[in-house]
Amino acid sequence: MPETADQPPIAPDHAGDHAPAHTPQDHAEVYSFLGPSGTFTEAALAQVPQAKGKHWRSVNNVGEALGDVVAGRSVAAMIAIENSIEGGVSVAQDALATIPDLRIVGEYLVPVNFVLVARPGTRLSDVKVINAHPVAYAQCHLWLDANLPAHGHLPSSSNVAAAASLLDGSPADAAIAPPGIIDHHDLEVLAENIGDNPNAVTRFVLVSRGTAIPAPTGADKTSIIAELPDDRPGSLLDLLEQFSTRGVNLSLIESRPIGDSLGRYRFVIDADGHISDERVADALLGLRRFSPAVIFLGSYPRADGRHVDYDHRYRDEVFTEAREWLKGLTAPPGE
Amino acid sequence: MPETADQPPIAPDHAGDHAPAHTPQDHAEVYSFLGPSGTFTEAALAQVPQAKGKHWRSVNNVGEALGDVVAGRSVAAMIAIENSIEGGVSVAQDALATIPDLRIVGEYLVPVNFVLVARPGTRLSDVKVINAHPVAYAQCHLWLDANLPAHGHLPSSSNVAAAASLLDGSPADAAIAPPGIIDHHDLEVLAENIGDNPNAVTRFVLVSRGTAIPAPTGADKTSIIAELPDDRPGSLLDLLEQFSTRGVNLSLIESRPIGDSLGRYRFVIDADGHISDERVADALLGLRRFSPAVIFLGSYPRADGRHVDYDHRYRDEVFTEAREWLKGLTAPPGE
Amino acid sequence: MPETADQPPIAPDHAGDHAPAHTPQDHAEVYSFLGPSGTFTEAALAQVPQAKGKHWRSVNNVGEALGDVVAGRSVAAMIAIENSIEGGVSVAQDALATIPDLRIVGEYLVPVNFVLVARPGTRLSDVKVINAHPVAYAQCHLWLDANLPAHGHLPSSSNVAAAASLLDGSPADAAIAPPGIIDHHDLEVLAENIGDNPNAVTRFVLVSRGTAIPAPTGADKTSIIAELPDDRPGSLLDLLEQFSTRGVNLSLIESRPIGDSLGRYRFVIDADGHISDERVADALLGLRRFSPAVIFLGSYPRADGRHVDYDHRYRDEVFTEAREWLKGLTAPPGE
Amino acid sequence: MPETADQPPIAPDHAGDHAPAHTPQDHAEVYSFLGPSGTFTEAALAQVPQAKGKHWRSVNNVGEALGDVVAGRSVAAMIAIENSIEGGVSVAQDALATIPDLRIVGEYLVPVNFVLVARPGTRLSDVKVINAHPVAYAQCHLWLDANLPAHGHLPSSSNVAAAASLLDGSPADAAIAPPGIIDHHDLEVLAENIGDNPNAVTRFVLVSRGTAIPAPTGADKTSIIAELPDDRPGSLLDLLEQFSTRGVNLSLIESRPIGDSLGRYRFVIDADGHISDERVADALLGLRRFSPAVIFLGSYPRADGRHVDYDHRYRDEVFTEAREWLKGLTAPPGE
Repeated sequence: MPETADQPPIAPDHAGDHAPAHTPQDHAEVYSFLGPSGTFTEAALAQVPQAKGKHWRSVNNVGEALGDVVAGRSVAAMIAIENSIEGGVSVAQDALATIPDLRIVGEYLVPVNFVLVARPGTRLSDVKVINAHPVAYAQCHLWLDANLPAHGHLPSSSNVAAAASLLDGSPADAAIAPPGIIDHHDLEVLAENIGDNPNAVTRFVLVSRGTAIPAPTGADKTSIIAELPDDRPGSLLDLLEQFSTRGVNLSLIESRPIGDSLGRYRFVIDADGHISDERVADALLGLRRFSPAVIFLGSYPRADGRHVDYDHRYRDEVFTEAREWLKGLTAPPGE
Repeated sequence: MPETADQPPIAPDHAGDHAPAHTPQDHAEVYSFLGPSGTFTEAALAQVPQAKGKHWRSVNNVGEALGDVVAGRSVAAMIAIENSIEGGVSVAQDALATIPDLRIVGEYLVPVNFVLVARPGTRLSDVKVINAHPVAYAQCHLWLDANLPAHGHLPSSSNVAAAASLLDGSPADAAIAPPGIIDHHDLEVLAENIGDNPNAVTRFVLVSRGTAIPAPTGADKTSIIAELPDDRPGSLLDLLEQFSTRGVNLSLIESRPIGDSLGRYRFVIDADGHISDERVADALLGLRRFSPAVIFLGSYPRADGRHVDYDHRYRDEVFTEAREWLKGLTAPPGE
Repeated sequence: MPETADQPPIAPDHAGDHAPAHTPQDHAEVYSFLGPSGTFTEAALAQVPQAKGKHWRSVNNVGEALGDVVAGRSVAAMIAIENSIEGGVSVAQDALATIPDLRIVGEYLVPVNFVLVARPGTRLSDVKVINAHPVAYAQCHLWLDANLPAHGHLPSSSNVAAAASLLDGSPADAAIAPPGIIDHHDLEVLAENIGDNPNAVTRFVLVSRGTAIPAPTGADKTSIIAELPDDRPGSLLDLLEQFSTRGVNLSLIESRPIGDSLGRYRFVIDADGHISDERVADALLGLRRFSPAVIFLGSYPRADGRHVDYDHRYRDEVFTEAREWLKGLTAPPGE
Repeated sequence: MPETADQPPIAPDHAGDHAPAHTPQDHAEVYSFLGPSGTFTEAALAQVPQAKGKHWRSVNNVGEALGDVVAGRSVAAMIAIENSIEGGVSVAQDALATIPDLRIVGEYLVPVNFVLVARPGTRLSDVKVINAHPVAYAQCHLWLDANLPAHGHLPSSSNVAAAASLLDGSPADAAIAPPGIIDHHDLEVLAENIGDNPNAVTRFVLVSRGTAIPAPTGADKTSIIAELPDDRPGSLLDLLEQFSTRGVNLSLIESRPIGDSLGRYRFVIDADGHISDERVADALLGLRRFSPAVIFLGSYPRADGRHVDYDHRYRDEVFTEAREWLKGLTAPPGE
């Protein structure tokens, strides 16, 4: 399968396909990912059992991947959501905030590791210019400063494209790439583990459409995007209290500019628990009442499988008992 | 029915009945109040339209009044609940906290005003010893210091009893009493308006049994008694947040010792609004989940008729809309 | 000095003096307490080492006791402050809130225990009317209901006066009194331990004048009275946050009506720690800025001797380090 | 001056200079900015009065700009901090969080506006591949979709580089650039105002070294970066309370991964007011005590000149009065 045909340095709109033959009725079986083969995103998709043996559609950016889902070209798209290498948190978060009817149905972690590759025969001392995606480039800052202090940087649109371009006329001498790149391209590794942080990991989410929600597992998270009602002091405090008064812990809270003017933000939130948990559902109710715009992005199993820990006074029985109690207070005599 | 059989043999607060004749089947029409005739409590009961023309049962203390309601001897009891003259907040609050199945169904305000009365012929300069209920005595402190600096105080069990005892062999020369006392007893007023605070008012509540709740009027309050879950720092903060996160204002919060050991308290709370208001019902749910012991004392019209003011983002429609939204999130496709 | 001249002509709570002889220059050595001999307050004063062998001045009520201190007649006064038998929390709290320049310098606990006493020869079955201070009477409710269901109640101004009056012409047959009463009066005990709560205890404070503060012991509390800035929703939350954001736990918070109109309260607060603790001092600063009226009542050793437990991130060093840091931020270059 | 010499597509380490001649002793007069000429960053630097007529050093990225300041090569560096076009918030925020001894001394706003440029003679219909910095490319998404739906994207390292490369052998047909680009390069404008948001603006800060703080103007902001003490629920709430309990409003709060592991964040905060404001200084003290790592980035005049509005109960006098009060509480008698 000619992977390199998927990797035109100039024509990102040209997407490639894993499976050579497919027909429109297969769309429910297509998975979109940031390609081409060898990307970290592909490694994340490889963790999805139901995607095994299905058609994997390689696309050029997050917008295209989510566009496939919205248009029905794919059943789901794998996108990087945090500490991203392939395009970053902000783009994905903003896309999820503005494209309607998307749902996160799974979370996956991929260790991030880089190698420096070059055309066969190149020596490290020959390297003057390096092809690299800007984010990957930034993550190898320390190694480059120590080993190639005088190098130049030629930005690339993806990690794989950076490497592939070496065989396609690029003036660069070397490229920063994922370790698996040499399985796909005739390149040699000049240095391994050149990333600054040996524990780096990228978090991916599998995004689908519709209202189906994966069943609760006890180790779930719920993703939400919410705007603050106004910029009065303390409104973020009020938002956070919607969770804390229900004993719901947040594993992520990020602000993103809404974009219409400086100083207006929406918040991207990952909460521990599942929408079918009473405390999470009640927090969602509180959030909906509080926020002028709230998007439920889904409840899904955590990639790390860590069980959600919460105070026993927020367990489901407490919520149902309270509802029964309230109902009893206003029941007519004799009931 | 021998009402007087309920009276202690030496009863400074000699109780009586307004209506001379009644039968057991009339019990649903009996109202208990702290007597005897002339008390501020009687003045509060006189504000209740449905009590007009019914049997008013004079009792000696709050416990007896509520006991009448519990035992079915009365349909309701009028008791002082705040800034009380006739026995005080604490006794009433503790009784409501410990006697089950009571409901406050109305609130009434009575201006508090005192006169100094004496047997006919007594002059102010003759007064050496004053009969007075301790609370009333305390409220006339400034006038007494200025006008009778050398007097002695003989405590009495009620304001009316203080005055009545003057005609019953008391060694006192004068008594502090409510203004209406001279309608009931052959006494003369030596001084009027002797209370320290001309705006003093006592708040009374009418207490009934069962689960019927007065219809919302838009000017309602809801009374609750709740214990804190434990004495960890901040648990009172958590309790208050149950209201503030729903936009519910509190007009009263008082702590009362639970009584089993020092340092353990329950809180008596008056919240603006009616249990049929979504925001109040939701705060009650939150409170029930939070507190190991919460008593709903009722929702009823405010005595001052002041409309409840609250932020429009806590109006009923916001709550019902949020519930619909949450329901839609988890609805199967096609619904 | 004619102490008896201070007594009202009809004084059920006949006050007296422990020491037969004293002169005005002894005033700094006089301690006032709610008398007469045999009261729980006297038992509290007996716990004060520095009061040993000094003149103890018996007075009739809290106001008189604090008046002695203000006027310089006493060096200190012992008053009941919580769960009180001898006159109650509210009176003491309100006095501390309104009389300036008072300081609490010590805290003492006295177990509360009652006996039923009568003139020699009286049998329990003879008892028809009982003399009792209303608060003591309320605390023996269960025993009385079970053993003397048909009794009448004659209120008294103090526990000791209730007993003493049996020998002074009272029509009552028995009295509720502290256990030590038979050391002072020719009475017999009809029943012991008649209080409803075997663990009942009254908390007393020793009140002095001036600005001297007992040295910190590590097991201290700090008493404050503060008004809320207005009745906007959440202002009590804001007050509590002054403590919680400095890691200061509260062992007591009580609301007391300010008295000028319904719905306005001041809060009586006991905080763990000493004003010389950085976190307590900082909370006091925050409280002073927040509250339109705040009264510092003192820092003093806790009666229970329990060491104050607090998060290590609020220890003194953290405060001084932060001040140094802030100072460094704005220091001119070179310093 | 040969601007294009500053713009090697491959050698970003080669920086350019505005002033043809300078010597080491001029370093205090050098200002670094993300070049080359024509960038939005240069437009921001043009707003700085004290930079007029000084040497402007063009650099390739934020790290290089701040490196100049740290190394003493420049007196200050202008960097984009929010809603950035030239490289983004995250890079700048992370650099400020990790490079010690930097101070923000000014804030500047530059409207963001884009044109599509091409080599002379090119028509819009000829455009197949577009050179663009990824952020600028993302901001013109709507216009490109509508007018050039089939284009390809070639990423560039800066907006100016994108345009300059058209004259330097780039295979692209057009470039997205700032409007002033045609003053520096022989290019033609194919379309104006192609940005999606006509009100887009980028916020820049001028970063210097040392401890000098611009004098307060009444329209200031204070920038801080702080880590949370741990990931217990509610610790972000606690952080926010450090500001809200002192009446300090936040205009920005952003989380940034600390980078050592997923789920650990630091928060970038802009607070209204100046460190010389008592309420801001006190909030900084609280923050320092709370946070295991807090960086004060400076107090400086706001770009929009908007006066800081705050509740009068947080004015300086209230803080100084409270300190005097506290001091008086513990003063020895006679002082």
